[in-house]
Amino acid sequence: MELRVQDIGEQGLLKRVQAFCPSTFASELGEALSVGDDAAVLPTEPGKSLVVTSDVLVDGVHFSDSTTPPESAGWRAAAANLSDLAAMGASPLGITVGLGLPGDVLVSWVERLYVGMTDCLRRYNTVIVGGDICRSPVITVSITALGQVDPTRVIRRSTAQPGDAIVVTGYHGSSRAGLELLLHPEVEPELEGRASLIHAHQYPNPRLDVLPPFPCAGMDSSDGVADAVLQLCQASGVGARLDRQRIPIHPALRNWASPEQAMQWALYGGEDFELVLCLPKESAQELVKQSGEGSAIVGTITSNPEVRVVDSTGEYSDQILTLEEGFQHFKSE
Amino acid sequence: MELRVQDIGEQGLLKRVQAFCPSTFASELGEALSVGDDAAVLPTEPGKSLVVTSDVLVDGVHFSDSTTPPESAGWRAAAANLSDLAAMGASPLGITVGLGLPGDVLVSWVERLYVGMTDCLRRYNTVIVGGDICRSPVITVSITALGQVDPTRVIRRSTAQPGDAIVVTGYHGSSRAGLELLLHPEVEPELEGRASLIHAHQYPNPRLDVLPPFPCAGMDSSDGVADAVLQLCQASGVGARLDRQRIPIHPALRNWASPEQAMQWALYGGEDFELVLCLPKESAQELVKQSGEGSAIVGTITSNPEVRVVDSTGEYSDQILTLEEGFQHFKSE
Repeated sequence: MELRVQDIGEQGLLKRVQAFCPSTFASELGEALSVGDDAAVLPTEPGKSLVVTSDVLVDGVHFSDSTTPPESAGWRAAAANLSDLAAMGASPLGITVGLGLPGDVLVSWVERLYVGMTDCLRRYNTVIVGGDICRSPVITVSITALGQVDPTRVIRRSTAQPGDAIVVTGYHGSSRAGLELLLHPEVEPELEGRASLIHAHQYPNPRLDVLPPFPCAGMDSSDGVADAVLQLCQASGVGARLDRQRIPIHPALRNWASPEQAMQWALYGGEDFELVLCLPKESAQELVKQSGEGSAIVGTITSNPEVRVVDSTGEYSDQILTLEEGFQHFKSE
Repeated sequence: MELRVQDIGEQGLLKRVQAFCPSTFASELGEALSVGDDAAVLPTEPGKSLVVTSDVLVDGVHFSDSTTPPESAGWRAAAANLSDLAAMGASPLGITVGLGLPGDVLVSWVERLYVGMTDCLRRYNTVIVGGDICRSPVITVSITALGQVDPTRVIRRSTAQPGDAIVVTGYHGSSRAGLELLLHPEVEPELEGRASLIHAHQYPNPRLDVLPPFPCAGMDSSDGVADAVLQLCQASGVGARLDRQRIPIHPALRNWASPEQAMQWALYGGEDFELVLCLPKESAQELVKQSGEGSAIVGTITSNPEVRVVDSTGEYSDQILTLEEGFQHFKSE
């Protein structure tokens, strides 16, 4: 029987499709694979490289009117792509927006989507530079973000060194918790900080504001802390030791969910769009100060290739992280 | 009642969406409008500008297994975007490919799509530099092409001058005729040149090979000769006089269809992906020589703003062209 996309999943398909890209550029397509970076880097002139990243978002898969008003869907789409630029150390030049739309979509819905995108872009001093609109049976938003980076400052996944401190630039699990509150509005209507968690889901902030002024390894946490650390370790041929107690959880989430649930969402929830960076300890401490609330050193890169979560309080036994608990977009759900 | 996308059509929606782009970049989004160019131009360094163009193609709307094998769908998607670069005078740097796929699509179908794209890209010395794959209820192919151009050589729609000769770089109507033959395989199975017409539809050649070494006005003929001339005239505030007898029709199409049908397809069929350029007569003659088979001077830019098709043989009466017969992607079909 002939193989179908659902038989091999997104990662299996990406591996096959990478064969059609030059190895230098297979990285961005392989973002979800251990071989890839968050974006492609094209050397266009001495001292400056062009960075390109693409995302396709589909109604009902990546956004839904039940949890995200169109302004939020637009903001999130723009933010996810700007976060991929931040993950490469790049500053934005602009984005293109390709829209597929059924004929019965409200014009006001489309305009509200653009309001959300441009509100997000404005915060980061960038703009929509082009795009396309066409008819489609399902709303599809395809964004390509363009950025520029000094080639000596490119953040890659493959350069983490044993001994590096691992910094996360903010709270994790908040976006996933916010989604839960949106899906179940009857839950905890009086929860203190409820609005913060929902805001974290609907209007995340890509961390273009904390790009370090020196080379380091890293990526963004779009698929959760576990995925980011695992991808970094696999690409760099190293391991990591994370301290469970140091993974930053927003106070509102701490107050609401069980510690196990909060940790699960921080590790695997995704869409917090913070950066996970590996760098020498002194620089790491500096970066944590700059990155503001929630930022923390969460562990250390090790030469032993496993990714182990330890608990400095001794309450939880060690846990070995694997990629299997992460997203598998095509597998049955 | 609230407006829906189908009420205002693609052009109406593009006009509203352009309000969200800086006016310098509204051009690419307005490609289908008279205000737009085929791509956005971003000045990134002295002496070189970045050119960006996006397209979204949807199964059943822009391609179909009934007329295009996946290799051809891939080739056409790549060719359409490279043609937009050619229309701006730009040389390609690479493309990104965002794919939305239902789980039951054959893996071999996806691989054949990439074979088609990369075959086309290879012919023009360029590559896939990134992309994304996600689940979607309908196959969607979103391409963003990146190119570079000397800012003094950008081809724009708005600079046509009265007296300029209008050059088309090859035959028109062939792609539409090829589609007809694919849709109706029972028609003219013995037609001489049948394979050429089908090839023109399935594997069009963007004209990156004939970019003139001097500034000129122009665009590509992705929506037909009539659309191209009308868009150029509207953007430049001029008119045109076209000679019906000079619009180049492939011999196979001449032999098969009535002159009226062939002319209709040449003017409105689209997807021939040739260039339509406006330039002084001597340069135009030079360009025609370089562009090879089918290339011709088809008329002249006039200060009178109407676009008139005259017949030098006197057989047909004059015809005034309008945009209304062109594509309206969202309107009822």
